[in-house]
Amino acid sequence: MKRQPIVRMRPRNAFYAQSGGVTAVINASACGVIETARRHKRVIANVYAGRDGIVGALTEDLIDTGRESAAAIRGLRHTPAGAFGSARYKLAGLEKNRAQYERLIEVFRAHDIGYFFYNGGNDSMDTAHKVSEIGRLLGYPIACIGVPKTVDNDLPITDCCPGFGSVAKYIAISTREAALDVASMARTSTKVFVLEVMGRHAGWIAAAAGLAGQKAGDAPHIILFPEIAFDREQFLAKVKGSVQRCGYCVIVVSEGVRDASGKFLAEAGTRDAFGHAQLGGVGPVVAQMTKEALGYKFHWAVADYLQRAARHAASAVDVKQAYAVGKAAVEFAVQGKNAVMPVIVRNSSMPYRWSIGEAPLEKIANREKKVPRTYITADGFGITAACRRYLSPLIGGEDYPPYRDGLPVYVELKKIAVKRRLKQPFAL
Amino acid sequence: MKRQPIVRMRPRNAFYAQSGGVTAVINASACGVIETARRHKRVIANVYAGRDGIVGALTEDLIDTGRESAAAIRGLRHTPAGAFGSARYKLAGLEKNRAQYERLIEVFRAHDIGYFFYNGGNDSMDTAHKVSEIGRLLGYPIACIGVPKTVDNDLPITDCCPGFGSVAKYIAISTREAALDVASMARTSTKVFVLEVMGRHAGWIAAAAGLAGQKAGDAPHIILFPEIAFDREQFLAKVKGSVQRCGYCVIVVSEGVRDASGKFLAEAGTRDAFGHAQLGGVGPVVAQMTKEALGYKFHWAVADYLQRAARHAASAVDVKQAYAVGKAAVEFAVQGKNAVMPVIVRNSSMPYRWSIGEAPLEKIANREKKVPRTYITADGFGITAACRRYLSPLIGGEDYPPYRDGLPVYVELKKIAVKRRLKQPFAL
Repeated sequence: MKRQPIVRMRPRNAFYAQSGGVTAVINASACGVIETARRHKRVIANVYAGRDGIVGALTEDLIDTGRESAAAIRGLRHTPAGAFGSARYKLAGLEKNRAQYERLIEVFRAHDIGYFFYNGGNDSMDTAHKVSEIGRLLGYPIACIGVPKTVDNDLPITDCCPGFGSVAKYIAISTREAALDVASMARTSTKVFVLEVMGRHAGWIAAAAGLAGQKAGDAPHIILFPEIAFDREQFLAKVKGSVQRCGYCVIVVSEGVRDASGKFLAEAGTRDAFGHAQLGGVGPVVAQMTKEALGYKFHWAVADYLQRAARHAASAVDVKQAYAVGKAAVEFAVQGKNAVMPVIVRNSSMPYRWSIGEAPLEKIANREKKVPRTYITADGFGITAACRRYLSPLIGGEDYPPYRDGLPVYVELKKIAVKRRLKQPFAL
Repeated sequence: MKRQPIVRMRPRNAFYAQSGGVTAVINASACGVIETARRHKRVIANVYAGRDGIVGALTEDLIDTGRESAAAIRGLRHTPAGAFGSARYKLAGLEKNRAQYERLIEVFRAHDIGYFFYNGGNDSMDTAHKVSEIGRLLGYPIACIGVPKTVDNDLPITDCCPGFGSVAKYIAISTREAALDVASMARTSTKVFVLEVMGRHAGWIAAAAGLAGQKAGDAPHIILFPEIAFDREQFLAKVKGSVQRCGYCVIVVSEGVRDASGKFLAEAGTRDAFGHAQLGGVGPVVAQMTKEALGYKFHWAVADYLQRAARHAASAVDVKQAYAVGKAAVEFAVQGKNAVMPVIVRNSSMPYRWSIGEAPLEKIANREKKVPRTYITADGFGITAACRRYLSPLIGGEDYPPYRDGLPVYVELKKIAVKRRLKQPFAL
C-alpha cells in the first residue's frame, strides 16, 4: 500500500479577480474558486476578491469572501455579471509600467497572498503571466492561475470558453423566436429582420444563431461574419432570393463585420448635422441598406448586454464548465502549479463528453481563435455541418435560476472590505 | 331536479384569425379556441383559420385546423408568434369599403361559417364588430367574438391583455440582468445603458421594466414614458445624479416618447448624407444625448421583436389568461352570444385572483388605455407602488417550453388549405 506524503505548508491567502466584459456565468467560476478554496483550508486560508477586478488589487481594495455565507457563494452559480466588479484595465508591458506590477506584489505581500486567480480572456492571461514573472523577479513567488472567460469564444487551446455557451444559446433561441414572429407577418408587414450580435473580431456568436435553423429555408437566412469581407452585391442578392423564396429574410450580423478594405460596416453609417459618427450599430446599417436597395420593410434588434447577461436562458453545459474551470484553477494551485490555465477538452461530440486539461498561460495570452473557414458555408453566409457539430453541445441543457414574484433571484454579496495595510494610496 | 333543455342546432363551422402584431402567447389563445371547439362538436363542426389573418378570409385561403393532430394543437400553447399567420390589414369603414365586408360574408357563406373569432387588439375588435353588423344587414347572421391580444396592454375594460404579461416579464428580467452587467463594470467602462422597448402610445411595457428594481438606487434609474412629455434638461440632470450616486444609470425608453411639441424623439435623430431619416430608434438617440451633454460612455440595446416573441421567458399567468380568453370566446359563441369579447377581471391583487368577464365589442373598439398618471412617480421617471401592485402579478410564474438539443421545440402546423368554393379571386 502506497502512502501519500503529507506536505505541511503554511496556509496563505488567495486573490481572485474578474476581468474584462462580464458574462452570464463568470460568477459560476467565482463560485467554483471560492467553494473549492474553502475545502482546502490547509493551503488557502481565505480568498480575497478584487473590487472591480485588478483595480481592487492596485488600490488595495480587497473584498473578504470569507465574510460571505455559504448560501451567498452558492448563489453566485446562478447570478450573472461580475459580483465583485470587473474592470477594463490592461496592465502595460513590464518595462513600460513596472510600477503597477511592483504595486501588485506590494499589496499581495501585505496580505500574504500566495495565489492569484485571474478570471478573464486573452489580455488577462497575459497579465496573469506577467504577474507570475514579476513575482519571481522580485523574490515574491506567487502561483498565478488563469480562469478562462469570454463570450467571444476566441481563446486558443481550450475547446470552448465559459461564457460563450450561454450567449450562443440566448442568440439561437432569440433568432428562432424572432424568426417565427417575422414569418407570421411577412405577407403584410416586415420582410427583413436584422439581429446584431457581439463579436468584434471572431464570429462565434453570430455562428451560434445558425443553430436556430434546422432545415433548408429556416432562419437565419444570412449570417454576416467578421471573418468574411462584406460584399454588398452578393449580400443584397441573397436577401432578395430569400424574400422571394421564403417570403422573408432573417439576418444575423456580427458587430465586427468589415468590408473588403477592412473598414467596419458600422462606421459606414450616417453622421449627424455636426458630423458626429452615426448612432446606430451595424444592425441598422444593414437593415437600411436592404430597404434602400430592395424596398423591403425592415425591423432590427441590437441585443447588446442583454445577450451576455442572460442568465435566465443559460446553457447548463456552460454553467458546469464555468464552475469546473474555477474549481480546477484552485486544484492546480493546491498541486503547486503556476502560470497555467485550465482548459476544456472535448473528448467526444456525440454524445458530448468533456474534461479539464491544462495549458501554459504564455500559450493563451494575446492569441485569438477565429471561426475557421471550414465552419462557414462556401457562399460565406451560413454555418456548415461541422460548425453545427462543434456548437450544438455547447448550448445543451437548461439551468434556470430560482424565481420569486416572476423574476430571477440573483444574489447580492455583502462585499466587506479587508482592512488596508499599506500607507500610500495608488493612483490608477 | 332541473333538466337542462336540449337545444338541437345544426353544427356550423367557425373562422379564427390572428390579427396585428403577434405575441408570445397568441397561439395559446388559438389553442384555447380550437381545443374548446373540439369539445363542442354539436355546435361547431370545424375551425377554419385564416392564412395570414383576415387576408385568408378575403382570399378564401382557409386552413383546416381539423387536419392538425391533438398534439400539434396542444403545442400551440407553448409556441410564440402567429402559427396561422397574422396580418396588418385594417378593413376600412362600411361605407368606404363595403365590397370587402361583402366578400367576407360571401366566403363565410360558402364555407358555412357561423362563428367568427378574431384574435387581436382594438382595431380588430372594431372589425369584428363591423362584421357582426354587416352580417345582420346582409341576412347572414354570424356570431362575432373578439379574443383580446396585444403586447401594448392598451385595451379598455379588461384588466390586462394577453401578450402583455410575457413581454413585461421579459423586459423586467432583461433590465435586471443588463443592470447587473453595467453595475459590475461601471467603474472603468460603460456608465449609461439604454434599453429601448415597444409601446408607441402607451408606456405599459416601459413601466414593466420598473419591476426589475426593488429598493432605492436599483435599476432602472429612469423610465421614459410616452405619457410624459420628454424634458431634456430634467432628464440629463437625472442621469447625472444617478451616475454620481450609484456609479451608473440604466434608462428604459419607450419607442413612443415625444417632446413637448408632440414630436417623436426617435425622429429627432440624425439624417444621412442623402437626407434620409436616421437609422436608429429612440434608444441610440437618448444614449447619444447623454454622451454629448455629460460625456459618459454608453451602450444601448433595442429588443424589438425579441421582446414579444420571447416565449422562452413567458409569464405563466399570461399563458393561462391567453388560453382562457380563447376558451371563453368559444363558450360565449356556444351560449349564443354575439359581438362580445371575454375580458380579464381582477378579483384581488394580493393574492392575485382573476376570472373571465364579458364586454361588448363596441366598447373595446378603437379605444386606448394608457398608463394613468397615478402609476408614474411625481418626477415622471419611475413607477409608483400602485403601478407595481398592478403589474407584479401579471409576470407571475414560469411556463417553460420543452427543449431539445438546447433549443425550445416550437410546433409547426401542417396548415392544409380548405378546398376553395368560390370562382372569383379577390384582389387585396
